[in-house]
Amino acid sequence: MPAINKQITLAARPSGMPKLSDFKLVESPSPDPGPGEFLVRALYVSVDPYMRGRMNDVKSYAPPVQIGEVMGAGAVGKVVTSQHQQFQAGDVVEGFFGWQQYAVSNGTGVRKIDPTLAPVSTALGVLGMPGLTAYFGLLDIGKPRDGETVVVSGAAGAVGSLVGQIAKIKGCRVVGIAGSDEKVAWLRDELGFDAAFNYKTTTGYTAKLAELCPKGIDVYFDNVGGTITDAVFPLINVGARVVVCGQIAQYNADKIETGPRLLWHLIVKQARAEGFLVFQFAKRYAEGLTEMASWLKAGRLKFREHFVDGIENTPNAFIGMLQGENTGKQLVRVAAE
Amino acid sequence: MPAINKQITLAARPSGMPKLSDFKLVESPSPDPGPGEFLVRALYVSVDPYMRGRMNDVKSYAPPVQIGEVMGAGAVGKVVTSQHQQFQAGDVVEGFFGWQQYAVSNGTGVRKIDPTLAPVSTALGVLGMPGLTAYFGLLDIGKPRDGETVVVSGAAGAVGSLVGQIAKIKGCRVVGIAGSDEKVAWLRDELGFDAAFNYKTTTGYTAKLAELCPKGIDVYFDNVGGTITDAVFPLINVGARVVVCGQIAQYNADKIETGPRLLWHLIVKQARAEGFLVFQFAKRYAEGLTEMASWLKAGRLKFREHFVDGIENTPNAFIGMLQGENTGKQLVRVAAE
Repeated sequence: MPAINKQITLAARPSGMPKLSDFKLVESPSPDPGPGEFLVRALYVSVDPYMRGRMNDVKSYAPPVQIGEVMGAGAVGKVVTSQHQQFQAGDVVEGFFGWQQYAVSNGTGVRKIDPTLAPVSTALGVLGMPGLTAYFGLLDIGKPRDGETVVVSGAAGAVGSLVGQIAKIKGCRVVGIAGSDEKVAWLRDELGFDAAFNYKTTTGYTAKLAELCPKGIDVYFDNVGGTITDAVFPLINVGARVVVCGQIAQYNADKIETGPRLLWHLIVKQARAEGFLVFQFAKRYAEGLTEMASWLKAGRLKFREHFVDGIENTPNAFIGMLQGENTGKQLVRVAAE
Repeated sequence: MPAINKQITLAARPSGMPKLSDFKLVESPSPDPGPGEFLVRALYVSVDPYMRGRMNDVKSYAPPVQIGEVMGAGAVGKVVTSQHQQFQAGDVVEGFFGWQQYAVSNGTGVRKIDPTLAPVSTALGVLGMPGLTAYFGLLDIGKPRDGETVVVSGAAGAVGSLVGQIAKIKGCRVVGIAGSDEKVAWLRDELGFDAAFNYKTTTGYTAKLAELCPKGIDVYFDNVGGTITDAVFPLINVGARVVVCGQIAQYNADKIETGPRLLWHLIVKQARAEGFLVFQFAKRYAEGLTEMASWLKAGRLKFREHFVDGIENTPNAFIGMLQGENTGKQLVRVAAE
């Protein structure tokens, strides 16, 4: 008798902040792998800010999730049975398996994880897509130089917390912006940020940033957009680089929000704002993972994982992440390793 | 008896669009050059959009003009008397001589103009700062490739009209946005733009641009900002370059205007917006002028100059230029050659 596969599908397109009723828990028989395929049982599934965009009926860099379809997502799992030459039962793998307990794969986009290197859940965090996003976004787009000042918004998130630490490795002054005093304390006391502040209890972001960045801002790694970004632009230095990674403040907007026009700052400061998707660096993932792993091993990168248990709680975890409840990488633990 | 030197000073800091009363015509004796100096009589003085920013009491990339001070400006003139070894009476020169009939200079930032190459007034246009702005902005920041689509706003201005023609030389499809049917006709029929439209009589800029740019927009050379730029962003292609050269729509705003938030387009399209000032390419001016002159000689670049006569009419010319009355380069003819 096949196992039951609990899956989370998109029940309705969210309007604004997603609600639990926008998702549906469905049960179907666990699928059977055919020739050249294997069956994976999920251990951890990922919830990430970018998923909010895929819930809208808008063609973006990837097609939207359809109503009734299982939500796409990265996951780490264990191979249960295999008819694929390169994957054996017992292998731990990472791939785009979705918000579900079981998935069949032909191996496309799947990598094997070495459980002796680090906890396998890190394949969805520091040694996965968020880590690569931080690595290539900061180093290739932001190009920080020794002694420069780097400001990171969403600094306590999966990507932001790594961006700040990589910037410290590169010799920068690092200032983080986060949404709670606990996050701020973590950034300063454990991750080694030079300064950080809680945007929810601070008024006058520009004045605060001016105080914390006495030499101005050379690199701004932007995960959030909105009023925080508005406050950063007046402080950028000549030749500054704005790395546009995320605009989470906009993701739940029903229509495009307005804000002060910012482009003229780029003229006056001879500065650049550049957006990116981690996929554009796909050919260099091995380089990024190797360097991130070496920093991790050397104790130069720290990370936190924020777990929610049970596939049925994935929508909760996702909504909580959009509301900033996580410190570090938000994950759903689906089964014991 | 010394000649009278008519000068235009800043009488008041403009609020919004400058008024004639923000300027004052003053007369003083023509200055005397000392050792190592020379006296220039202006033939043409320049009015440029960037000057609006210098009239505000805000530290930008250059200090503001003070009340009662002669407005700074590029000008072409003839040396009257000289105690400088490298400049002789009769030389035609270009320098930052200001809105006045006579100026004394020690030669800093002054170049001699060859009157046999082109009309000397072009040292303030196609073979001067606007030409270099178009050249380096398009080629070094925009990096257009053969077959790409380039959109230019402020397309009939001193810079925009050259940007479009350089983009044509580089094998691009070129679409211009301008403010009158006459300008649109000039761009299409004389300068060889593939398409152009009058933003004052067009509703639905994005739809119009989508029609004129069936392959999307690879390079957007932005001279204006505001709602035109808002309409361009949704159409940029993956890997697009937005060259932020001017934001004339903002220059007369009393406070920072708001508009739709645009940065998320840069993420989805893995695109870049970069501001610049022509001064950052100062070491390469000779390269730019040589290439622009060769294109001009070969008939591959056309230009128009829009003359107003008399130093006393400079404020009028400046205000008219801000209102888009000029086609091509706006100049004030101060004296007969």
